[in-house]
Amino acid sequence: MSSSSLGRCFVVTNFGESHGPAIGCVIDGCPPGMQLTQEMIQRELDRRKPGTSRHVTQRQESDTVEILSGVYEGVTTGTPIALLIRNTDQRSKDYGAIAHQFRPAHADWGYWSKFGHRDPRGGGRSSARLTAPTVAAGAVAKTWLKENLGVTIRSRLTHLGETEVGFESWDCVNENAFFAAVSDTSALEAQMDAVRKKGDSIGARLVVEAHGVPAGLGNPVYHRLDAQIAYALMGLNAVKGVEIGEGFAASTLTGTQNADAMTTAGFASNHAGGILGGISTSAPIVARVAIKPTPSVRLPLDSLDEVGNAVTVSTSGRHDPCVGLRAAPILEALVALVLMDAALMQRAQCGHFGMIFDAEADEN
Amino acid sequence: MSSSSLGRCFVVTNFGESHGPAIGCVIDGCPPGMQLTQEMIQRELDRRKPGTSRHVTQRQESDTVEILSGVYEGVTTGTPIALLIRNTDQRSKDYGAIAHQFRPAHADWGYWSKFGHRDPRGGGRSSARLTAPTVAAGAVAKTWLKENLGVTIRSRLTHLGETEVGFESWDCVNENAFFAAVSDTSALEAQMDAVRKKGDSIGARLVVEAHGVPAGLGNPVYHRLDAQIAYALMGLNAVKGVEIGEGFAASTLTGTQNADAMTTAGFASNHAGGILGGISTSAPIVARVAIKPTPSVRLPLDSLDEVGNAVTVSTSGRHDPCVGLRAAPILEALVALVLMDAALMQRAQCGHFGMIFDAEADEN
Amino acid sequence: MSSSSLGRCFVVTNFGESHGPAIGCVIDGCPPGMQLTQEMIQRELDRRKPGTSRHVTQRQESDTVEILSGVYEGVTTGTPIALLIRNTDQRSKDYGAIAHQFRPAHADWGYWSKFGHRDPRGGGRSSARLTAPTVAAGAVAKTWLKENLGVTIRSRLTHLGETEVGFESWDCVNENAFFAAVSDTSALEAQMDAVRKKGDSIGARLVVEAHGVPAGLGNPVYHRLDAQIAYALMGLNAVKGVEIGEGFAASTLTGTQNADAMTTAGFASNHAGGILGGISTSAPIVARVAIKPTPSVRLPLDSLDEVGNAVTVSTSGRHDPCVGLRAAPILEALVALVLMDAALMQRAQCGHFGMIFDAEADEN
Amino acid sequence: MSSSSLGRCFVVTNFGESHGPAIGCVIDGCPPGMQLTQEMIQRELDRRKPGTSRHVTQRQESDTVEILSGVYEGVTTGTPIALLIRNTDQRSKDYGAIAHQFRPAHADWGYWSKFGHRDPRGGGRSSARLTAPTVAAGAVAKTWLKENLGVTIRSRLTHLGETEVGFESWDCVNENAFFAAVSDTSALEAQMDAVRKKGDSIGARLVVEAHGVPAGLGNPVYHRLDAQIAYALMGLNAVKGVEIGEGFAASTLTGTQNADAMTTAGFASNHAGGILGGISTSAPIVARVAIKPTPSVRLPLDSLDEVGNAVTVSTSGRHDPCVGLRAAPILEALVALVLMDAALMQRAQCGHFGMIFDAEADEN
Repeated sequence: MSSSSLGRCFVVTNFGESHGPAIGCVIDGCPPGMQLTQEMIQRELDRRKPGTSRHVTQRQESDTVEILSGVYEGVTTGTPIALLIRNTDQRSKDYGAIAHQFRPAHADWGYWSKFGHRDPRGGGRSSARLTAPTVAAGAVAKTWLKENLGVTIRSRLTHLGETEVGFESWDCVNENAFFAAVSDTSALEAQMDAVRKKGDSIGARLVVEAHGVPAGLGNPVYHRLDAQIAYALMGLNAVKGVEIGEGFAASTLTGTQNADAMTTAGFASNHAGGILGGISTSAPIVARVAIKPTPSVRLPLDSLDEVGNAVTVSTSGRHDPCVGLRAAPILEALVALVLMDAALMQRAQCGHFGMIFDAEADEN
Repeated sequence: MSSSSLGRCFVVTNFGESHGPAIGCVIDGCPPGMQLTQEMIQRELDRRKPGTSRHVTQRQESDTVEILSGVYEGVTTGTPIALLIRNTDQRSKDYGAIAHQFRPAHADWGYWSKFGHRDPRGGGRSSARLTAPTVAAGAVAKTWLKENLGVTIRSRLTHLGETEVGFESWDCVNENAFFAAVSDTSALEAQMDAVRKKGDSIGARLVVEAHGVPAGLGNPVYHRLDAQIAYALMGLNAVKGVEIGEGFAASTLTGTQNADAMTTAGFASNHAGGILGGISTSAPIVARVAIKPTPSVRLPLDSLDEVGNAVTVSTSGRHDPCVGLRAAPILEALVALVLMDAALMQRAQCGHFGMIFDAEADEN
Repeated sequence: MSSSSLGRCFVVTNFGESHGPAIGCVIDGCPPGMQLTQEMIQRELDRRKPGTSRHVTQRQESDTVEILSGVYEGVTTGTPIALLIRNTDQRSKDYGAIAHQFRPAHADWGYWSKFGHRDPRGGGRSSARLTAPTVAAGAVAKTWLKENLGVTIRSRLTHLGETEVGFESWDCVNENAFFAAVSDTSALEAQMDAVRKKGDSIGARLVVEAHGVPAGLGNPVYHRLDAQIAYALMGLNAVKGVEIGEGFAASTLTGTQNADAMTTAGFASNHAGGILGGISTSAPIVARVAIKPTPSVRLPLDSLDEVGNAVTVSTSGRHDPCVGLRAAPILEALVALVLMDAALMQRAQCGHFGMIFDAEADEN
Repeated sequence: MSSSSLGRCFVVTNFGESHGPAIGCVIDGCPPGMQLTQEMIQRELDRRKPGTSRHVTQRQESDTVEILSGVYEGVTTGTPIALLIRNTDQRSKDYGAIAHQFRPAHADWGYWSKFGHRDPRGGGRSSARLTAPTVAAGAVAKTWLKENLGVTIRSRLTHLGETEVGFESWDCVNENAFFAAVSDTSALEAQMDAVRKKGDSIGARLVVEAHGVPAGLGNPVYHRLDAQIAYALMGLNAVKGVEIGEGFAASTLTGTQNADAMTTAGFASNHAGGILGGISTSAPIVARVAIKPTPSVRLPLDSLDEVGNAVTVSTSGRHDPCVGLRAAPILEALVALVLMDAALMQRAQCGHFGMIFDAEADEN
């Protein structure tokens, strides 16, 4: 199985480099007969694309997607859906020194150790730009999940560095550059301006939720639903931690505190984050991630070059000072891809998508 | 690919139920020519087995492993290694009411939703007993990693509920029932006695580390090494959170704080936990997990039965009041399985196992 | 994915050696809720087992299967089904010379080249004995296919060496030691007696058919249904050729001759063997295989030993002088495994098992 | 794993439709550091492309390939290699009636049964045009196999319909439109002219060989090397039969006749076709395929439309009257893909590519 693929029945294979001719993906196993247009995918890509505020990379990419296959007269045929996004704002500059130095906290050294060489242009394949095809594929999965299971997926920023972001309403999330559920983001903007001015970067935390997922998705041992979600989310650039439900806090609870009582009105709580024994419960699936600060900073850092000499590295390219700011649509896409795959695998084995447990516990 | 399998080149397929005739696994892809005896596997199984202290389940199982195939005259042949562990202390009691009720926070409801019925005997396949085959397979991987790459893997308890466990020495870890790196565990014993007496349960946290892993294991997108570790660890019963390196704390750092400077003496720090860009760096791999409290508690909990009636569930069987206490050998096994698979995949593509970066940063 | 596994949604993982402690398999992905008993599996194993006539190996094995997991109260739970068959008639004799010589036309040399050593006892893993777990797993698939889709699968001997075996009735097939569709097998018996007396061996051909398969199973490119069948059948010991429908004869036909007209009464012919464009048509699936003569013969053959010396090899153990004689149940099992996997994958993607096209063309 | 993918360590994922915007593939797992240019791939594509003689389809396609990723400065980086071929000679004509009729012996009916609808433009994904990406990927594999193992792969037409094509020299094969190993193809041209004039089509047979393959590639059970080759070749459009070595003729031999004696000068014969026990022997790998006549013929055939009415179908588009004529480069590509994947998997498990057995038996 390809190391650049996600999923088993609904399989997304990702390709491309940051400054190569194009990036994209091939989606295999999509159910036939579903309406799918370029616009439906573009909408999600536009939520992720760079250059939309001063707080993110200023690279200018329209991220226009082309559907190369698998769709006929606006409907999926059941054959592979290939999606292509041309890179248009590559820089032809000489990467000179940096091409032979290892930026601390960056993928440079690992790639070089593994492959013996690397594409230095904008980080090559380690660029967060490679999340665009994930978002494009996620748009397909989101559409199917919504239409067939009524599943909705949403994500928001919960922390910017040490700052906890408040919660007013999910309606705010798509109204600002932070995917924050607050109406006034001036404090966040000031915080980001300070980071950027200093030439440093900052981490973040987000939550992603899926509502309406039927009970029954996942498996008992190894290929558990929580394992699949952890794999997908930890597979995203810069993610260093993943929690399901209570997450690390669950370790401080007693069994009676952590139990989500089942009542005729539904689950009384959702410490589990919608997954027990590796299988969805139909309570909202809740996952949280920690995103490290962008490794590319303007401030100088000690490092080595490829021949082992000590060097000082300062990265002056176009970078997001906080990659977490644009992560929400990507997390949604990853969860959508996992859930769709799990739903199709569940249908394969059991002939149905599982059960809905009536009431939905308040997940907040 | 089997949903009960872990790995792609070194593939472990797990089977069995807690109170069925046997549990076990099949290991495919093991390199030929490696010495392997029943004793080498038994040693690891004995570290995990139940009944070794009053703080864990009192079920009496010797967990004796039988090698059914893949080994000839004490040496691996390269063909599948099947390992069998007979269950010997099954209970023949009537599971009566509990067989038709859903224990809160337990896998019961998910299994029932998915499969339409379930094996109620001791939790069936959702039992932590199914980690024994993982430990057995992990023993094979550990042996290979040690002999071929010099990799060593170790794990310890860092928190029991809200109590932070101190660190004296790794030498202490295998000397007590808690896998704690302290010489005096009387406080932990008292804490566990109180929990058990109350009929409740408690969560825990552990760290698992791998030393000597060459730089170069893993992949850029999706099948990243951190993703693989997160998948394996979150795939373990009761785990609700996984961190690599700084984990959630990384979100509160700046880019300059989080960067691990590369020096001619090695990495100056290890915030990354040994993985950057999805690929190992040869710094120690450090992962942390949160384990929720055991869902099976003697105290009564509100729930439903299979026909939707409200019931009160109290679980009186033999259960670990803290499953985290026995998790260390399992975490080690899971990390070993991931690393061995990644090493073989690396050898497939690149013809070598990656590079060792001289000095090892102090990971504490 | 394990190299000893077959299937993607319904996955069979095979283990064992001819003279090791046991052989068996793990079946993952079986739908829950299906009745399954040891007897249902044993029935198929008994059709394949050795020692049932003087024309096959005289090794005495009852091939008694034990269900280790995945079945509770006679019903599949949806979790992995592990099946175990103990070897009981291993020979403890000294394999002496043969352990270090390569039998011509046998797997010895390949194994040695690949693994650097080999288990010489009865051919180790290259023994046709390893088809027993395949037959056991096939019994599960056959049962499911029959109950859920009405699919029936049958196989018979069409050629013994150069002798074409006549066709009287499928009812005869299970009444003789040859799986021949004739009532009088005396000529076949005489032919086999002559071969055995001479110390030589002989090849055979068989056909395997599946009736009632709905149209729609398979895929357009690469993972085509005919490709999957060819993979499974060519993966059987001693098979050197696989045909679908007209097979090699199709190359001598014109397009008009080879076309199976569709009529309101069904297909007018079945040159296609039930598969077009990689997808089933609901006409009977017809595959033919050629099985080479057993490589182990009593007559002397020129070969080499492990250090490159010329030697003369004569194999005196217990061997089938025609492995094709016992192949029919194995071919049925392999086709059943492929069809069940394809059916579950079809259900995953499309939500149904495909369509039945009314009339069934006469496939003879 | 994607149903449109081939391979496990070296994985090719195919996409596209005959008359969609583009076709192509993504290659994952390619070793880094190998020289790879557009020209190297184009050379193989040009051998397969349409319109090169009057005996093949007159569709005008340059089949120009673009490398979208995975190559930097003419060298593979180890990341996915995406290859894109734009369709340029699509027909915009109204497919009218044929869009709702099933052409006998064609994929139409199967696709419709499976997916509920289909892309009727030029056969959509069932077109042999989808073999172009396979040839492109095969060029990469061929290059690697040649450079790293000295493996060479070649294929030729052995039969055109009932006509056996002679053998003069492999040098002739690339000099004519038939991939025939003869210098005078006038008889073949006359035969094709007659078929085309009549509005009918015709089948063919080819052989494909790989020389220099080390002993040791493949596996004992299920994922055998012959099984992998059978899967790949039977997965090619119109192939109805696959043989390894003696193939069907092996069934008429005795064990002594079929045995390839091993001598200090190498194998004395190659009945086995280079594979024993599922593993390569280092003798030439020899596989033969039967290709059915093209189903699209101008002559009228009886069939049904989508609502079940009897219709007469006559196909007037641009079609190859013998798809076998262009199959040689595709068979070479498929065998190259299988061998490269098997070589990488062998390196993963065993750390080497197997052994070369000195002398090469004459395979003719």
